[in-house]
Amino acid sequence: MKVMLVGYGNVGKAFRKLIHEKRVREAEDVKIVGIVTTRGLMLKDQEEFTVDKKVDVLQALDEVQPDVVIDMASANYKTGEPSLSLYLTALKRGIHVITTNKAPLALKYKEVLSTAVSHSSKIFFQATVMSGTPSINLYRILPGMKVKTIRGILNGTTNYILTRMSQGLSFAEALREAQELGYAERDPTLDINGFDAAGKITILSNVYFSRSISINDVKFEGIKDVDIKGAMERGNKIKLIAYADEKETYVKPMEVSKEDFLYNVDGVNNALEIESDIQKINIVGPGAGPLNAAYGAFSDLILLLRGENLPGL
Amino acid sequence: MKVMLVGYGNVGKAFRKLIHEKRVREAEDVKIVGIVTTRGLMLKDQEEFTVDKKVDVLQALDEVQPDVVIDMASANYKTGEPSLSLYLTALKRGIHVITTNKAPLALKYKEVLSTAVSHSSKIFFQATVMSGTPSINLYRILPGMKVKTIRGILNGTTNYILTRMSQGLSFAEALREAQELGYAERDPTLDINGFDAAGKITILSNVYFSRSISINDVKFEGIKDVDIKGAMERGNKIKLIAYADEKETYVKPMEVSKEDFLYNVDGVNNALEIESDIQKINIVGPGAGPLNAAYGAFSDLILLLRGENLPGL
Repeated sequence: MKVMLVGYGNVGKAFRKLIHEKRVREAEDVKIVGIVTTRGLMLKDQEEFTVDKKVDVLQALDEVQPDVVIDMASANYKTGEPSLSLYLTALKRGIHVITTNKAPLALKYKEVLSTAVSHSSKIFFQATVMSGTPSINLYRILPGMKVKTIRGILNGTTNYILTRMSQGLSFAEALREAQELGYAERDPTLDINGFDAAGKITILSNVYFSRSISINDVKFEGIKDVDIKGAMERGNKIKLIAYADEKETYVKPMEVSKEDFLYNVDGVNNALEIESDIQKINIVGPGAGPLNAAYGAFSDLILLLRGENLPGL
Repeated sequence: MKVMLVGYGNVGKAFRKLIHEKRVREAEDVKIVGIVTTRGLMLKDQEEFTVDKKVDVLQALDEVQPDVVIDMASANYKTGEPSLSLYLTALKRGIHVITTNKAPLALKYKEVLSTAVSHSSKIFFQATVMSGTPSINLYRILPGMKVKTIRGILNGTTNYILTRMSQGLSFAEALREAQELGYAERDPTLDINGFDAAGKITILSNVYFSRSISINDVKFEGIKDVDIKGAMERGNKIKLIAYADEKETYVKPMEVSKEDFLYNVDGVNNALEIESDIQKINIVGPGAGPLNAAYGAFSDLILLLRGENLPGL
């Protein structure tokens, strides 16, 4: 099984380590045969990145001819490119795709998935939502549920900031602290304004409700103007809630009471609540971090090697 | 795919309804061809149970010759019989087994699993721990983790009683209430003394740490003599914690602090925390109820029909 990695930042490096250090029977024949970044293509499997050929990702695909492409590049929410074209090209050739990159699926879920189906190739994307904490893959083991609603805390940056604000910090102080700790980027706009969470609930909504929506269909609102004090006086907390049902998908800051499961999900943790005709379950875990995202892609790779596919495809 | 049900109480009835009402592509060819109880065997699929042949479960297996046996009978912790013999006989003939009944696996996990492996048949048992809330099946989607510890609240009856005691009720009052609400049986001994949770953590320990232990190897302690008031004065709660690592497996009431995830798991809910080299995740959901147990078996059946097996087998 020949694997080509796209992107070789912290996630890519952590993924390469997992491939070499984890002894999983299913992955015995996995070989990284190419790593491509914006700088070019490396045609060997070594820790230090060097450029063997100055090519772009699509040329790299021709060059390497892998069985699986694993995209760990950063998201381009304007067009999804170059990842989007890479997925479509790969899937049409019967090459499977695993991705930690939300943008192409948040923008063009239906196009990507139907391309996979019509060419009998597969796309796995656990790490696009909640990193290595099962969210997409949880769906695999809950067959036949009639899902009524899904609700989650899907952005760790804003959850950390809201948690610290409820402990007395101002928004600016909490943001600065989150940046110092590496929980927020230097330009935190896409976290703070709810866009990142909107991309994630778009993907979840498509999976859990078999929909075909794009992030452009999703209303989102950020955490800049929340009334933490008012909520606290009422014994509540403010959480940035991503919500979806059969008809609606949105992200907005909401007041949650002590009885709400999400009330207790603090700091950088993420959580997902799935309410179905059978039961209400919750899963909680880290939603970010290079090792966590790499593990999300790694678990996808193992499930792919076991012959699984997304249920319903 | 011919299915024989063993046991036809509330769980069996709920399971039969799921088979008929859920439209899941993988289950289109499933047919219930026999239902066997202590009264005998019914050779048709109808809601009201009638006896067609006065036979026991092993004779019923010969009579029906199913592809899958689904055991929803109540647990016999002394010997695991007659379910244990049924599983071994079925698995040796290449007949798959799905069970909601903990006893045979809590007593003879290794014998049952190795019989399945050596005859290329499968045994699935999600519903033995946390009912329809993924616990065993969660393991399927977390490949390659190095699990360090698992901890859980695996018995809803005791968790309900402890929750109500922390709200001011005495043990006797809380137990009576739990019985009135149907959360505790008339003879609640095996819940109260920790034995039921011990059976569950035995099974989880075998799955998550590839061990071969029996419930007889597990120390357990019940909730009869807990110091709720002392714990509350320290800002803590008492929870009946089931714990396992590579070496140890036990059940005992423990004081947990507000920072502990399990602190917030109240009432009849169950929870499982898995700490690995990658991350700490938690899953919470109902751990009992006829529909929930039936769904656990139903989800196993779908995974079986998808061609899955327990990872590592």
